[in-house]
Amino acid sequence: MNYKAIDSQDIEFLISVCGKGRVFVGEEINEDFAHDELGGIEKLPEVMVEAISTEEVSKIMKYAFDHHIPVTPRGQGTGLVGGSVAIHGGIMLNLTKMNKIVELDEENLTLTVEPGVLLMEISKFVEAHDLFYPPDPGEKSATIAGNINTNAGGMRAVKYGVTRDYVRGLEIVLPNGDVMEVGGKIVKNSSGYSLKDMIVGSEGTLAIVTKAVLKLLPLPKKAISLLIPFPDLAMAIETVPKIIKSKTIPTAVEFMERAAILAAEEFLGMKFPDKSSDAYLLLTFDGNSKEEIESAYDKVAHICLDSGALDVLISNTQERQESIWKARGAFLEAIKASTTEMDECDVVVPRNKVADFIKYTHELQEQFNVRIKSFGHAGDGNLHVYVLRDERTEEAWKKILGDVFECMYGRARELGGQVSGEHGIGYAKRPFLIESMGNNGMELLKNIKLAFDPKNILNPGKVC
Amino acid sequence: MNYKAIDSQDIEFLISVCGKGRVFVGEEINEDFAHDELGGIEKLPEVMVEAISTEEVSKIMKYAFDHHIPVTPRGQGTGLVGGSVAIHGGIMLNLTKMNKIVELDEENLTLTVEPGVLLMEISKFVEAHDLFYPPDPGEKSATIAGNINTNAGGMRAVKYGVTRDYVRGLEIVLPNGDVMEVGGKIVKNSSGYSLKDMIVGSEGTLAIVTKAVLKLLPLPKKAISLLIPFPDLAMAIETVPKIIKSKTIPTAVEFMERAAILAAEEFLGMKFPDKSSDAYLLLTFDGNSKEEIESAYDKVAHICLDSGALDVLISNTQERQESIWKARGAFLEAIKASTTEMDECDVVVPRNKVADFIKYTHELQEQFNVRIKSFGHAGDGNLHVYVLRDERTEEAWKKILGDVFECMYGRARELGGQVSGEHGIGYAKRPFLIESMGNNGMELLKNIKLAFDPKNILNPGKVC
Repeated sequence: MNYKAIDSQDIEFLISVCGKGRVFVGEEINEDFAHDELGGIEKLPEVMVEAISTEEVSKIMKYAFDHHIPVTPRGQGTGLVGGSVAIHGGIMLNLTKMNKIVELDEENLTLTVEPGVLLMEISKFVEAHDLFYPPDPGEKSATIAGNINTNAGGMRAVKYGVTRDYVRGLEIVLPNGDVMEVGGKIVKNSSGYSLKDMIVGSEGTLAIVTKAVLKLLPLPKKAISLLIPFPDLAMAIETVPKIIKSKTIPTAVEFMERAAILAAEEFLGMKFPDKSSDAYLLLTFDGNSKEEIESAYDKVAHICLDSGALDVLISNTQERQESIWKARGAFLEAIKASTTEMDECDVVVPRNKVADFIKYTHELQEQFNVRIKSFGHAGDGNLHVYVLRDERTEEAWKKILGDVFECMYGRARELGGQVSGEHGIGYAKRPFLIESMGNNGMELLKNIKLAFDPKNILNPGKVC
Repeated sequence: MNYKAIDSQDIEFLISVCGKGRVFVGEEINEDFAHDELGGIEKLPEVMVEAISTEEVSKIMKYAFDHHIPVTPRGQGTGLVGGSVAIHGGIMLNLTKMNKIVELDEENLTLTVEPGVLLMEISKFVEAHDLFYPPDPGEKSATIAGNINTNAGGMRAVKYGVTRDYVRGLEIVLPNGDVMEVGGKIVKNSSGYSLKDMIVGSEGTLAIVTKAVLKLLPLPKKAISLLIPFPDLAMAIETVPKIIKSKTIPTAVEFMERAAILAAEEFLGMKFPDKSSDAYLLLTFDGNSKEEIESAYDKVAHICLDSGALDVLISNTQERQESIWKARGAFLEAIKASTTEMDECDVVVPRNKVADFIKYTHELQEQFNVRIKSFGHAGDGNLHVYVLRDERTEEAWKKILGDVFECMYGRARELGGQVSGEHGIGYAKRPFLIESMGNNGMELLKNIKLAFDPKNILNPGKVC
């Protein structure tokens, strides 16, 4: 693709829109902006601009559109697939300064926010009003627009669904600079193709989210976590479809292995309540009465014990729950700290195929003699599997990673799964999306992209 | 648009695919296929074909694509905006014979169905397995693919969301005949643009749904309805945002006026439990324990009484609940039977704007001296407003309907609402979608349409 290189006139224009203090060129750009959380895909933008209003975003996009300059929107850069890396250079549009909570509407149960508000700020804000924003991805310092653009799911998807289900409306800036509102504070909508749902999960390739209207729920009054040790991981995971079949829906069902727990303990410098077993299920139940929750977890506890669980540890204090969930939140960082480099696979499979898939990753570990660590959302079939480089040479690492990924994504397809449950496709996962969708499917995605972005200037090289 | 007219060769091809018994030409086509439930938009297809397999649908689409013949997919024809009328003639693809329930998967809580399965068959089937398909539009004899194509919402959207939220995966046939699967039995998905969500609500203009994987929930063990009389409608509706604000989420909140109740009584030949008041709220609560439900409705009953309700009638017997909900389900038919012709407005507004909007329809009734009847989903802001022709001449009716609709849709926009909450745009509501989206927005919709259907042969003239 032939994009226009940034020149001094472009910089002048950007300064005329945003002022000198929010336009960064060349060495003024922090190296962090060359990659995302996982790293591996590296490229600095030619210029990085911090926008603070929809109007600025619109002006910049119109200019970039007219001059054929690529634009990469960016939040906190916590992604794992290179979605926010400016692989074609050009302008990086940093939206983290658009970080105001605009309005809480308690009569419509909506929260209107700017794109750069952090997930942890949203939960803190709404919980203070006895309200609840259910999506709960592990990375709490991600921006809401990042979550919207990957359709992040998180722990509570089992009961509450994913980010898509909590986006009622969006203000977006199209690649040509047009500002548009899609959806709104409304509960239903059948008014033409759902542009809102097209933007959710589009990884910043179709439009830039400049405002979001989120759906809230009343905050459940009580929550309880169960930590359930099993003799081995297969036994733990095979219990999950039985739980689902029992017609009890927990809020979250995570699985974890001792190795991940030990790594998290070391990383956090804090103790996990139990690490005597090889494998654990971690479940949460929430609701409005103690009775309601107790009757649910009592049933599930019996199912687990009948399926070979060694014990059922109930965490009903805030403190104990926090120590468990904090460890769970640190798995990614902890595994990352235990090796030289790693890459991730975020497939999603039907819930009753999780055990099959994890067993297969263990086979691959043996077959390729490579460390593979996993944890994830057993309750919704979304796995986070990490392949560790350790002391391999660059060449050996590329080879083994390619082979292992080819096997894993192939198996996920066989099991009726998809390439990504919540991290997205970005730059890194495109080959696997092509294998999954086929050429005709990719052609359709590309045509949709062109419907929004006929000059292919918005986050080019990502998704399709 | 210049489409090829159907000739004997086309008929021969269709017979070669489906056999003679499922291909209907000219006078063999029942007049019912010229219009939908509401009528007003009339046109017979040149040929009507009953498909019974995905393979047949694929072959027919490929042929139609190659020969530039328009195809109108059709379910039970219960739509209200002309979406299933073959306004350009050509082939009508009747999918009602693809009506098998394919699989219940209790480990993944999914139900796989063919497109022509009726909504009432789904609820009956899953409830026998102690499971629950929450979407509950009034028209139970609609097909599931019709519900998916309009993203129907129904009564329970307040608590459970709309059809979109219960579609996990689809098998679709694209306009060129390609068969594709989007989504699946998976709970999360961030693998490229959500084609599944593009198809949901696309009114048969982007692809033909030939199979759907639906999400199920455990069946709530108990439900209770409250019928709450108010001295007037404004007072009833103004209570709803207070209920939402109280952090209690009922399953359904409907509003109704005495006139609608009387019409339904006459239409059904059965008695409604109470008709002493001018206006009513009808609420349902569901859950797994009596205590849980009681604590919720007790709070809401007090809010209603504090807001001027005259009484709170609790329906905890199956029989009584059925008599109320049956009346609610008959409102559309009853109003239709009370006049010569009518047209409908299905706007959705933020929940705290419903009272404003209904007050405005009363003003329009006075101003234009025309009967306007409404009922609808107070809990989710989706209104069903009917303008009645009565004894007007054709000319006077067209004039007054145009004027009244112009006012109503204009006011909905001012209130932050959208053209349709659940009936869709079809043919009838396109002018209002254009006013709502603007030319740039419509251009975007058209480009998306062309990405799927470059020859514009699938249900042309609808939505955009």
